[in-house]
Amino acid sequence: MIVVLRKDASPERIVEARDLLSKKGIDVRAVAWNNQTLLVTHQELAPEEVAELERNGITERVVNSTLRAQLASKEFQGKTSEVRVGDVSIGAMKLVIIAGPCSIESRTQFLETAHAAKRLGASLLRGGVYKPRTSPYDFQGLGDEGLPLLAEVREEVGLPIVTEVLAPEKVDLLSKYTDMLQIGARNMQNFSLLKAVGKSRIPVLLKRGMMATIDEWLQAAEYILLEGNPNVVLCERGIRTFEKATRNTLDLAAIPVLRKLTHLPVVVDPSHATGSRDLVTPMAKAAVAAGADGLMIETHPNPERAFSDSHQQLDLKEFGNLVEELEPVARAVGRLLR
Amino acid sequence: MIVVLRKDASPERIVEARDLLSKKGIDVRAVAWNNQTLLVTHQELAPEEVAELERNGITERVVNSTLRAQLASKEFQGKTSEVRVGDVSIGAMKLVIIAGPCSIESRTQFLETAHAAKRLGASLLRGGVYKPRTSPYDFQGLGDEGLPLLAEVREEVGLPIVTEVLAPEKVDLLSKYTDMLQIGARNMQNFSLLKAVGKSRIPVLLKRGMMATIDEWLQAAEYILLEGNPNVVLCERGIRTFEKATRNTLDLAAIPVLRKLTHLPVVVDPSHATGSRDLVTPMAKAAVAAGADGLMIETHPNPERAFSDSHQQLDLKEFGNLVEELEPVARAVGRLLR
Amino acid sequence: MIVVLRKDASPERIVEARDLLSKKGIDVRAVAWNNQTLLVTHQELAPEEVAELERNGITERVVNSTLRAQLASKEFQGKTSEVRVGDVSIGAMKLVIIAGPCSIESRTQFLETAHAAKRLGASLLRGGVYKPRTSPYDFQGLGDEGLPLLAEVREEVGLPIVTEVLAPEKVDLLSKYTDMLQIGARNMQNFSLLKAVGKSRIPVLLKRGMMATIDEWLQAAEYILLEGNPNVVLCERGIRTFEKATRNTLDLAAIPVLRKLTHLPVVVDPSHATGSRDLVTPMAKAAVAAGADGLMIETHPNPERAFSDSHQQLDLKEFGNLVEELEPVARAVGRLLR
Amino acid sequence: MIVVLRKDASPERIVEARDLLSKKGIDVRAVAWNNQTLLVTHQELAPEEVAELERNGITERVVNSTLRAQLASKEFQGKTSEVRVGDVSIGAMKLVIIAGPCSIESRTQFLETAHAAKRLGASLLRGGVYKPRTSPYDFQGLGDEGLPLLAEVREEVGLPIVTEVLAPEKVDLLSKYTDMLQIGARNMQNFSLLKAVGKSRIPVLLKRGMMATIDEWLQAAEYILLEGNPNVVLCERGIRTFEKATRNTLDLAAIPVLRKLTHLPVVVDPSHATGSRDLVTPMAKAAVAAGADGLMIETHPNPERAFSDSHQQLDLKEFGNLVEELEPVARAVGRLLR
Repeated sequence: MIVVLRKDASPERIVEARDLLSKKGIDVRAVAWNNQTLLVTHQELAPEEVAELERNGITERVVNSTLRAQLASKEFQGKTSEVRVGDVSIGAMKLVIIAGPCSIESRTQFLETAHAAKRLGASLLRGGVYKPRTSPYDFQGLGDEGLPLLAEVREEVGLPIVTEVLAPEKVDLLSKYTDMLQIGARNMQNFSLLKAVGKSRIPVLLKRGMMATIDEWLQAAEYILLEGNPNVVLCERGIRTFEKATRNTLDLAAIPVLRKLTHLPVVVDPSHATGSRDLVTPMAKAAVAAGADGLMIETHPNPERAFSDSHQQLDLKEFGNLVEELEPVARAVGRLLR
Repeated sequence: MIVVLRKDASPERIVEARDLLSKKGIDVRAVAWNNQTLLVTHQELAPEEVAELERNGITERVVNSTLRAQLASKEFQGKTSEVRVGDVSIGAMKLVIIAGPCSIESRTQFLETAHAAKRLGASLLRGGVYKPRTSPYDFQGLGDEGLPLLAEVREEVGLPIVTEVLAPEKVDLLSKYTDMLQIGARNMQNFSLLKAVGKSRIPVLLKRGMMATIDEWLQAAEYILLEGNPNVVLCERGIRTFEKATRNTLDLAAIPVLRKLTHLPVVVDPSHATGSRDLVTPMAKAAVAAGADGLMIETHPNPERAFSDSHQQLDLKEFGNLVEELEPVARAVGRLLR
Repeated sequence: MIVVLRKDASPERIVEARDLLSKKGIDVRAVAWNNQTLLVTHQELAPEEVAELERNGITERVVNSTLRAQLASKEFQGKTSEVRVGDVSIGAMKLVIIAGPCSIESRTQFLETAHAAKRLGASLLRGGVYKPRTSPYDFQGLGDEGLPLLAEVREEVGLPIVTEVLAPEKVDLLSKYTDMLQIGARNMQNFSLLKAVGKSRIPVLLKRGMMATIDEWLQAAEYILLEGNPNVVLCERGIRTFEKATRNTLDLAAIPVLRKLTHLPVVVDPSHATGSRDLVTPMAKAAVAAGADGLMIETHPNPERAFSDSHQQLDLKEFGNLVEELEPVARAVGRLLR
Repeated sequence: MIVVLRKDASPERIVEARDLLSKKGIDVRAVAWNNQTLLVTHQELAPEEVAELERNGITERVVNSTLRAQLASKEFQGKTSEVRVGDVSIGAMKLVIIAGPCSIESRTQFLETAHAAKRLGASLLRGGVYKPRTSPYDFQGLGDEGLPLLAEVREEVGLPIVTEVLAPEKVDLLSKYTDMLQIGARNMQNFSLLKAVGKSRIPVLLKRGMMATIDEWLQAAEYILLEGNPNVVLCERGIRTFEKATRNTLDLAAIPVLRKLTHLPVVVDPSHATGSRDLVTPMAKAAVAAGADGLMIETHPNPERAFSDSHQQLDLKEFGNLVEELEPVARAVGRLLR
């Protein structure tokens, strides 16, 4: 149950309302939410308790959600949230394309990709400096040394940047150099990390774990929201199944399922989902047709020489063609691309 | 290896060519293929054996496929095959919509659905008389008694009909009342049934098994093709995964994967894939955007009262809306709907 | 609901009881079950209807099962059934080992294997004459020509034989040459085949489909039972998962799960489950420790030269060692091996 | 490739050897390993480079592993490692039973469980103070306040303790209060955490991720080993599949697969794998029969009232029975229990 308190509620009255519930043995938590305060509990309130709250003069409304992930639920917020990243809005009518290399390998590589991505239609840049790799012997990213590069490219190209964070203690540092933090699939249930990005207010791109149900994914988002960070975007990137013709199995039905359950925007990453350059464009179109709010596309000036994920990155020409072909599909489902 | 013999090759010369290979210990099979004969073997031929064949005056070309399912492969046939069902062509520029109820329950129900489906844009009808049900206590379809109804409705409405076949001994009987036979997901590797529909020349809609890899699916198709029936259409209907928010997980990436591997047309069944009415339309759009040649949509005049699959069948109004919304998506990817 | 009628109930009274239910709109089916008749319905009866039945003088007891697969349920039969195959009993204290080659390739190969298997501790022989193969180009078994060999070896070696059946029309023929029919994983939901073996009274080894839930497996068994064939043995052989280090993932927890739900005996096939010779013995021990009633082990005099499944068949020495090592494990869980 | 340097190699000579490789462009890392130094690289060395190393007077041997996880491989260490936790050895002939509650809830609950566990045959205690929960609304463990309790119970009962760590920054703190750290399934690829426990020398229990292949699991272990911590024990706890009759699907074939690939000891957690009290004992027996080096069993004085995992914890009597029944199975496969 979520008790939304009025914007003008004084701190004293808020404490009063919280204590009222606590005294009844209700496990309640005050959450700062934009400019308001929410009192959140997973316990059921008796009708008379709800009525009492509604009479206290500072309650705006009381939300009952059937979803365990209450703050993520449609009952709490009826329409898709718009999450602002720099001056870009994810979840609006205009689709958002996030482009850039899997790993940032050098100044030249990132800068060239970034300029081209912007010119060709991307509105956000991606690029990893810390790379979570299955093997400790694989390229692990530039690490801290790559950070100034993020800031430099953002400045020069003029697009906001999303990059992956791997450890709670790096959240603050990364927030200085970047505009949105990505929680990767393997960390979807790294609860320490979820809480850390939740305490920050930076926008978060939460990738679905490759073995996570939609329900677990929303509960992972709830960890972030419950710390008071409302800026969460979900990213479907394929789940692990028995089929090995593709790297993962892209679960596009998750998009309309999420639309019914949550107000959080949903973007799709066809690059990791398929693991194969040839499949990125058809799956990008399918994602938009299914209702995605955006796409995350790995692009590289020279994919064959990429330090990681070379099979799935598009070169810049292919990326341009993708955007071209995407535009009529976007229009066909009532969305804009540029 | 496939040795395509010239159309004008005499039966004697064909036998001669086959015997030539047999004598060398090569396991070869003569396959009638449209108006030609193919000699097919899974063994490798030595270059001099290939050369000898090419010199025999009746060899049109020799095809080497890297795919085990040779007759299904792109190397054998470069562009998507068009499979004719009545006067409908599956695999052409115009998308094909197959509509109708899960089970045929009564004359009225089927006739009403059929008329509406045609009016709203379907070009083929579906309807089951033998229903494969998980439990023996569930409704098993009208059985043989439903057959005349198939013929009657086809006549009255003027659309070809596809229906599911469950047993080899029913193939001939069903072929009299229907235009295309469906092999259901549970029977994808029922090899007796595959051979039986292969021996017939009736068009076959081969659903993907819920546990089948794309590779196994193509090999199941090969069982049919190798009996000389080239009229095979593949139908993606979702695979089984850990995710239970949908009945199955629709694997749309299978469409572009198949495009690279096979010339067989591919249609998508979003009704069984999702198991939920709300998800059918977005997934139908996504399937078309991903390049499907058609859709199979369960429709029912009154889904709530359906004897089977009531959650996933669209009512006739919803079906009309679906076609309406699909049209711009089809155009956006260079296809026509009507 | 199962109404068990008394053994001495006359046909007239049975018809009377059935009609009584039918007239109330209850969908009821009379099933011959050993020497009795059962009236089976999946509908709920009102307490007064049950009382009326119990008063009719021919009702022995009324069984209410929470399982959809009623005849398979523990509520219907409290202790594990013993299924007799020749003079062997599956489901008794003595574990049953079924051994033999994947495919019967020749008289010598089958006879040699059979003699050795018996000597080393097997009590049933396996051997396929019709092989369900993923590719139509693979060895499909000896076919009908292999049948006399089955009978001959059974005679000479003196062990009952289990062999796989692929098509309903072969059930009667195979029953003449063999003692138990196997329904393979791919045919677990081939309902025509299930009904055909159900109509026969021959013992049936029902393998679990590689993507079948335990619940679906029991419902497949119910198709056989409901035709009046009580002689069903379940065989766990691994399910398909994302893990490819083994051919399938052996789900041994299915054994105690089934013990709680059903009276049908359960055997385990570690050969198909693992696909690897090295893994067969540890998994055989684990299966026995988990409570299996028997094992099915692929053995071949010369696995390297086998026409199929060469990686997973044990040679005769390895099979002997397996039995040797199994004995103390069997004793440790209160079972006998010989 | 692993270059094992002699124990008496001086630091200068070690640096010399490393530089020799570095200068040739080989990416090499010096790893402290027990009392020796290893030079480890994932690159191939030319035979003359290997010869040169072998001639340098400080090389003990050069190991070529086909496994990417080289330090975990059998080629590096031929027999199963024994990992010491307090005075307990995991990987020896004597099986190790780790028992205790899912979460530590109170002093009384933990102490009672610990005393009973010891008396009944456990040689290690488990108990979580930080609990990774799917929902942020669920009980998250006692947190830091629970730490003194760990130390107290260890002292009083006299058994070493294993507890789960969730964040890199807690590794040092936890190491003071506990004897072994558990990396939970959700954190198997939390690479920051793996590196942190690797830098420590505390024994690590690495649970398999529910979506992880055996290969990925070994590579996760390699992250720890490569930091110089050789004390890694693997714990199979079930993988996620389509089957929902059990919480996860226990992959017991992983045990013999791991035996062939790695020297790391393997224990099995049938509690999390099955999620059901009734299934723990049969699966524990099966795990031992399959060759596990130990078991992890959740026990609770009063499972019905447990704050988490109430369905799968054994009460103390059940735990006693389990140990009782396990003993003959252990002996049957040549292992000891007490």
